[in-house]
Amino acid sequence: MQLAERIINSKDAGLGNLLAAPKQNQVSFAGGLPDPDLFPQRELNAGFNRALASTTAALQYSSAAGYQPLRKQLAARLVADGVPASTESVLITQGAQQALDLIGRLVLDPGARVIVEGPTYPGALAALGTYEPEFCTIPVHDDGMDMAQVAATLARGGVRLIYTVPDFQNPTGTVMSLAKRQQLLALARKYDVLVLEDAPYRALRYRGTNLPTLRQLDQDDHVLHVGSFSKILAPGLRLGWVTGAQHIIDQLVQLKSNSDLESSTLTQRAVSEYLAHNDLDAHIKVLRRNYARKCKTMVTGLQRQLPASVHISDPAGGFFVWLELPAGINSETVLAQVQDRVTFVPSTTLYPDQNVKNGMRLAFTNPDEAAIRRGCRELAAGINKAMRVTCGAATAMA
Amino acid sequence: MQLAERIINSKDAGLGNLLAAPKQNQVSFAGGLPDPDLFPQRELNAGFNRALASTTAALQYSSAAGYQPLRKQLAARLVADGVPASTESVLITQGAQQALDLIGRLVLDPGARVIVEGPTYPGALAALGTYEPEFCTIPVHDDGMDMAQVAATLARGGVRLIYTVPDFQNPTGTVMSLAKRQQLLALARKYDVLVLEDAPYRALRYRGTNLPTLRQLDQDDHVLHVGSFSKILAPGLRLGWVTGAQHIIDQLVQLKSNSDLESSTLTQRAVSEYLAHNDLDAHIKVLRRNYARKCKTMVTGLQRQLPASVHISDPAGGFFVWLELPAGINSETVLAQVQDRVTFVPSTTLYPDQNVKNGMRLAFTNPDEAAIRRGCRELAAGINKAMRVTCGAATAMA
Repeated sequence: MQLAERIINSKDAGLGNLLAAPKQNQVSFAGGLPDPDLFPQRELNAGFNRALASTTAALQYSSAAGYQPLRKQLAARLVADGVPASTESVLITQGAQQALDLIGRLVLDPGARVIVEGPTYPGALAALGTYEPEFCTIPVHDDGMDMAQVAATLARGGVRLIYTVPDFQNPTGTVMSLAKRQQLLALARKYDVLVLEDAPYRALRYRGTNLPTLRQLDQDDHVLHVGSFSKILAPGLRLGWVTGAQHIIDQLVQLKSNSDLESSTLTQRAVSEYLAHNDLDAHIKVLRRNYARKCKTMVTGLQRQLPASVHISDPAGGFFVWLELPAGINSETVLAQVQDRVTFVPSTTLYPDQNVKNGMRLAFTNPDEAAIRRGCRELAAGINKAMRVTCGAATAMA
Repeated sequence: MQLAERIINSKDAGLGNLLAAPKQNQVSFAGGLPDPDLFPQRELNAGFNRALASTTAALQYSSAAGYQPLRKQLAARLVADGVPASTESVLITQGAQQALDLIGRLVLDPGARVIVEGPTYPGALAALGTYEPEFCTIPVHDDGMDMAQVAATLARGGVRLIYTVPDFQNPTGTVMSLAKRQQLLALARKYDVLVLEDAPYRALRYRGTNLPTLRQLDQDDHVLHVGSFSKILAPGLRLGWVTGAQHIIDQLVQLKSNSDLESSTLTQRAVSEYLAHNDLDAHIKVLRRNYARKCKTMVTGLQRQLPASVHISDPAGGFFVWLELPAGINSETVLAQVQDRVTFVPSTTLYPDQNVKNGMRLAFTNPDEAAIRRGCRELAAGINKAMRVTCGAATAMA
């Protein structure tokens, strides 16, 4: 039986393993899972009860673009954040992941170039990889992508899409500076290339103030802004959204319809009821307080136990701490040593070419603080051991 | 901004219009919408309450393949219907529509050939059309596709997929005979081609006895069997499934993960609770009784008011009555005349080449019986008028 080229050429992105629940006695820093103790379970349950009490329409077919009152509520939230949006220009998707898939479907032919940050979100590589592009990896500095390299890559031609997480980048936690946001948009305009602004962590800032989104700064409709309820409400709802120029959203609605007809009307109505009867921003404040504390626990725990030669990020928001080990230390080797006790995402998974081995992505949001401390101890012990072995070997060689 | 070839070459399948709610005073025979009065709303609400009462896991990330207890329940239902299935070989999808999308993604490169029935389900043309195949349309007889033409098309080469609705075909309502099922499988084996058995209506038989599924008769893993809760429980849940050879299902799980990570754990748990605490087969019996009555109302209503030159199907199950008007009568012209009062799907939408104009798909499941009678009157008046005009013109020409 002959399979499609896209399958024959594909690699397993390993997303399934990422999102698996931790095994017994194992601390997982791997998947970007929220803290389940913070899910507003009772309030969401009330939302489902309300949605099911009022009308049979909650169980019927409805609309590919999404439940209109929810789109309106989302548009209002986007506008409050400075993002230009209207009810009509918001498309509801199956989590942000489906938005990435549909955007890839819209602009990518085999061999088209896609600019991604290195390291980046592995799910984006998986979703966009379906359409067989050539990924061009741009290093991420503390203030975002290296814009000289973005410009040089665009000048080579053939780029159809720039994928970026400007706020609390997955996995480095960095925030793209205002100057770079403006440079990126100028380049997108010059080369007439679409920018996918993936913003699932934007509301989860633990200190400082947000910069304007790319979509807010976008003068000529080159940006699609993608968001999600997964990190601020609950991933089990599978609700995300995308907004941008109306003619692009209209095409994405059509692609959504072809792909799965529509998202669950019931779930959309339940979340719409939740938003109408609860203060989501107050809920997000609780998340911010909790995650800021967990982040600090992880960063200080690692700082205390690791030598200065290991670079430890100190993110101002988001879900992840990023470790850079000295060159020559392989994070996959460390993972093999410690994975019965603690897991994380090795950097190989986060680069299209899987060629950078000395990085580690650590999600701090899911485990409780005692588990974070235990996981940091186990991880630091594993890293220190690997560094002794490698340095010992290097010394013996010298 | 450059779009992908698949977009530039695409046509709007018009699915959005199909599933829209009817306007005031309009009877809709267009979309395949179930009767909302028959949704087990209270029981499903109890399912959501149970799913949300027991654990926070209902709101967390879970698994691309689906919620294991639901997969187990579905496997048991499939086995009871003669379909070989295990928990592991059932993948949960966003309705059957996503299964079609993922199967297209698995086997179709641009220009690959796909055999479809003519007429067929427009959503299949939309989902598979994403992967830019060449559709080969095979006429449907009372006992299923014309097998001589299937054989000739396969002999020409390049066919990667055969898409069929063997039970109560959408839109003709026909059932593929046992002999043709066996011939189709022999051809799939001979040419090593995948068969997509789309079976959303199989449980909705109004008289007679079901034949074995293609997947049951499949000796060498050429069949993927697709089902859905949309027609037997509620479309707003967006839950379908696909089963087949384990190695193919494993690949589809990977594609599902890349495309939207997973379906809603919460919805899956709620339906699993529904199945555990209710008798779905008893519910399906109620649907069958109700839909059989509506089907009879529509068929007899049309038979009484239309001349013998209009062929009216009398389906033994499913959602649709199929009308074939005399050649030269254009169903789109009739639609334009009557659509303020009654709508339906003209045959153009149901053929990849949109070249057959004298057919009409009429869904009888959604309107109540009074509305069906009113819609049939309006539709028959429109058809009779179009036939008078055309025959009058023909007489004047003669």
